[in-house]
Amino acid sequence: MKLSDLAEQLGREHRGDDLEIEGIASAASAGPRDLTFVVDQAWLERVAEAGALLLPYNLADATDRPRLLTATPALDLAQVGKLLGYREMVVSGVHPTAVVDETARLADDVVLGPRVVIGPEVEIGAGTVIHAGAVIHDRTVIGERCVVGSNAVIGFDGFGYEFADGHHRHVPHFGRVWIGDDVEIGAVTCIDRARFNETRVGSGTKIDNLVHLAHNCVVGENVFIAAQAGFAGSGEIGDFAMIGGQVAMIPGGKIGPGAKVVATSGVIADVAPGAMVSGWWGRDHRESLRELAMLRKLPAFIRKVKAFMRKHED
Amino acid sequence: MKLSDLAEQLGREHRGDDLEIEGIASAASAGPRDLTFVVDQAWLERVAEAGALLLPYNLADATDRPRLLTATPALDLAQVGKLLGYREMVVSGVHPTAVVDETARLADDVVLGPRVVIGPEVEIGAGTVIHAGAVIHDRTVIGERCVVGSNAVIGFDGFGYEFADGHHRHVPHFGRVWIGDDVEIGAVTCIDRARFNETRVGSGTKIDNLVHLAHNCVVGENVFIAAQAGFAGSGEIGDFAMIGGQVAMIPGGKIGPGAKVVATSGVIADVAPGAMVSGWWGRDHRESLRELAMLRKLPAFIRKVKAFMRKHED
Amino acid sequence: MKLSDLAEQLGREHRGDDLEIEGIASAASAGPRDLTFVVDQAWLERVAEAGALLLPYNLADATDRPRLLTATPALDLAQVGKLLGYREMVVSGVHPTAVVDETARLADDVVLGPRVVIGPEVEIGAGTVIHAGAVIHDRTVIGERCVVGSNAVIGFDGFGYEFADGHHRHVPHFGRVWIGDDVEIGAVTCIDRARFNETRVGSGTKIDNLVHLAHNCVVGENVFIAAQAGFAGSGEIGDFAMIGGQVAMIPGGKIGPGAKVVATSGVIADVAPGAMVSGWWGRDHRESLRELAMLRKLPAFIRKVKAFMRKHED
Repeated sequence: MKLSDLAEQLGREHRGDDLEIEGIASAASAGPRDLTFVVDQAWLERVAEAGALLLPYNLADATDRPRLLTATPALDLAQVGKLLGYREMVVSGVHPTAVVDETARLADDVVLGPRVVIGPEVEIGAGTVIHAGAVIHDRTVIGERCVVGSNAVIGFDGFGYEFADGHHRHVPHFGRVWIGDDVEIGAVTCIDRARFNETRVGSGTKIDNLVHLAHNCVVGENVFIAAQAGFAGSGEIGDFAMIGGQVAMIPGGKIGPGAKVVATSGVIADVAPGAMVSGWWGRDHRESLRELAMLRKLPAFIRKVKAFMRKHED
Repeated sequence: MKLSDLAEQLGREHRGDDLEIEGIASAASAGPRDLTFVVDQAWLERVAEAGALLLPYNLADATDRPRLLTATPALDLAQVGKLLGYREMVVSGVHPTAVVDETARLADDVVLGPRVVIGPEVEIGAGTVIHAGAVIHDRTVIGERCVVGSNAVIGFDGFGYEFADGHHRHVPHFGRVWIGDDVEIGAVTCIDRARFNETRVGSGTKIDNLVHLAHNCVVGENVFIAAQAGFAGSGEIGDFAMIGGQVAMIPGGKIGPGAKVVATSGVIADVAPGAMVSGWWGRDHRESLRELAMLRKLPAFIRKVKAFMRKHED
Repeated sequence: MKLSDLAEQLGREHRGDDLEIEGIASAASAGPRDLTFVVDQAWLERVAEAGALLLPYNLADATDRPRLLTATPALDLAQVGKLLGYREMVVSGVHPTAVVDETARLADDVVLGPRVVIGPEVEIGAGTVIHAGAVIHDRTVIGERCVVGSNAVIGFDGFGYEFADGHHRHVPHFGRVWIGDDVEIGAVTCIDRARFNETRVGSGTKIDNLVHLAHNCVVGENVFIAAQAGFAGSGEIGDFAMIGGQVAMIPGGKIGPGAKVVATSGVIADVAPGAMVSGWWGRDHRESLRELAMLRKLPAFIRKVKAFMRKHED
């Protein structure tokens, strides 16, 4: 398809030469017949042989390559992919091997992959897709246009015990999991049901693979949680927070709205709204970086102080 | 149900006014018709509007709210929940989609959820529940009254290779997994079979979601292992040890009975019985905390020393 | 079977007495009728009661126990196990509960466990085994003689979003997962499909349980990745690299060929070929160890400096 035709289909401004676009690719791997996208100057410099670019307006004159100007380069590229016949995962309908309890209430167009298990009294809203092998336990509520990844487990019992008569005894979990609209949950992620009330995931929140959300966690709206992060019981995560991979948080911890927690951090104290924390104890990120810098300089400092003390000892 | 009727049904002492109890809830969210439970003074102060409390005897006079006295407040609340019609996950019978090898030996009342896979010569004791999608590989032995979480994998091959002829070659794992009685295993947790002999999980041990127990690990009795913890091959964990979330331990490491390993710790040396360790290398927890405190004060100390050296240099 | 008969069957040199070998076991647990293997002097000292040993040539005279000399003690022991009737996991054929899309192309002898899901246009080479409950999404390519663990998920959508019109919108993932020959993948491990192009795992690479490989990662040949490690999008891992358990790496990070990353490390900068890194930020391993040693000595040093300053203050 001609670049000029793509410009017309997308409703974007075309600058530079016209050419036949045969494919889409990442900046580094795109060839002379490929379209790629760019979001900033540094990215632009990583473009190798791409035939044409999707560029934000502020870079309109940063190159003279064939280009389309747009506020949403990445999404436009995806749209071009579809126009050129690129395909995503195919999912539709209810697979005959899905196991759906007769008391579950599913919107007409819910998609269930092979071997999905939907437990008693589960509710699932319109446009939601549950991928192969996912297990949705009793009374879970899932909103509209959600995605639940393959082999994910939603609504399993929380990890709560009381010691009595010499044994750890599991406490019943009477609550459920409640998931808003437009939530996307990765493969093999686990979200446990609440002891009472609800474990909640707010609308628009996106959760990656292999994440653990314990009983009674309350996750706000439009939160991002990267892979393998884990939250102990009753944690709270505010709207628009961003949680890096392998982050851990103690029971009852609170992460404020808009806060950023750097990957692998262990959060043991509440994180203020908008703060950025990192490191084993989830301290302020700049403080963590300063400390690392200090530790690097420390051996030289220690040698200097020792020399000073030797010289002035007498 | 009247609070006085609940007192009678539970066999607990009732103090304060009587009232109709309609529900149960956590301390913070309980309303004027709800019963909640309290375990200590600080918890008591978090009680907002709860109509009545389940209290340990030592707090009998710490409030004049309607209350029941008990040694096991949390378990009593669960029992009240059941009396009031609260429901847990429903599991019973053998689901028709479960795949059970004909050589497996299961007690009559074993519960198998949808899509469970039970391999050859597996043995499972009375009262055990295997949840949806769990896979139990060949020759695994599981005791009585156990729970295996959804999509868990028990008895898969260990990760063991030998380098020969320019290739990594997988070494056969002839052993099996042995699990005692009253063991509970979370969703998507993996316990690998032994190379020889057995990977063992002692009776009464509780394991959370997404945990990894490698080949030949030997876990004692009544151990707690929180979510996403991982143990390399041949690790040993003593009775009543408590392992926090995302803890990692090197191959062959030993954690003594009753030891506590703080969440996210990386354990590279044996942990003494009853010790409490934390941090990247699993050091003594107080030492880790002292070190963190020291690091915080270090920049000020360095400034002071530098000023001192400048002053005394000549 | 006589030790001398085993020597003949394996083609190994027999030294010391002859005896009847009834079983195989690890060094610590082998009894007087068991054969075990030893790889070095320290290991030899852990041998308790084993009746006979498989020894490397350099230890031929380090003991006078009954022994067989070999360059591959561990693999020989596995072979003896098979001769003595020890059994591994049993897997063969295509289980009737496997769900295979009609457009998938599988070699004749591919083994599919119970409840495996094979999506559209998946290709799987000869001799590959897919274990129970694994999900292989659309267009994934898996080579010959591979193993995919139980409940693993290969080819699920990557975790990629663009913010537009006040919402996080998932970007389509048009790419696929490509896996070479002789690759082994653990239980519940997740490998996401690429945004464009391919997420790649080179031939001979071995991946443990619960690992996360995000979209567009490129893993070389003969790499080892231990359990619960996680790689963000577009990471690169060179041939023969060794990645410890629970390691994390930032998006686009590069680990050079032959590099070693110690368990639980968080890698935020590229790792040079052959380097060994550890710690939160993936620094040089010796530097990490030196820093830990320094931190331990620091309190005493600080006390000394304070005393010195007090003495010389006036």
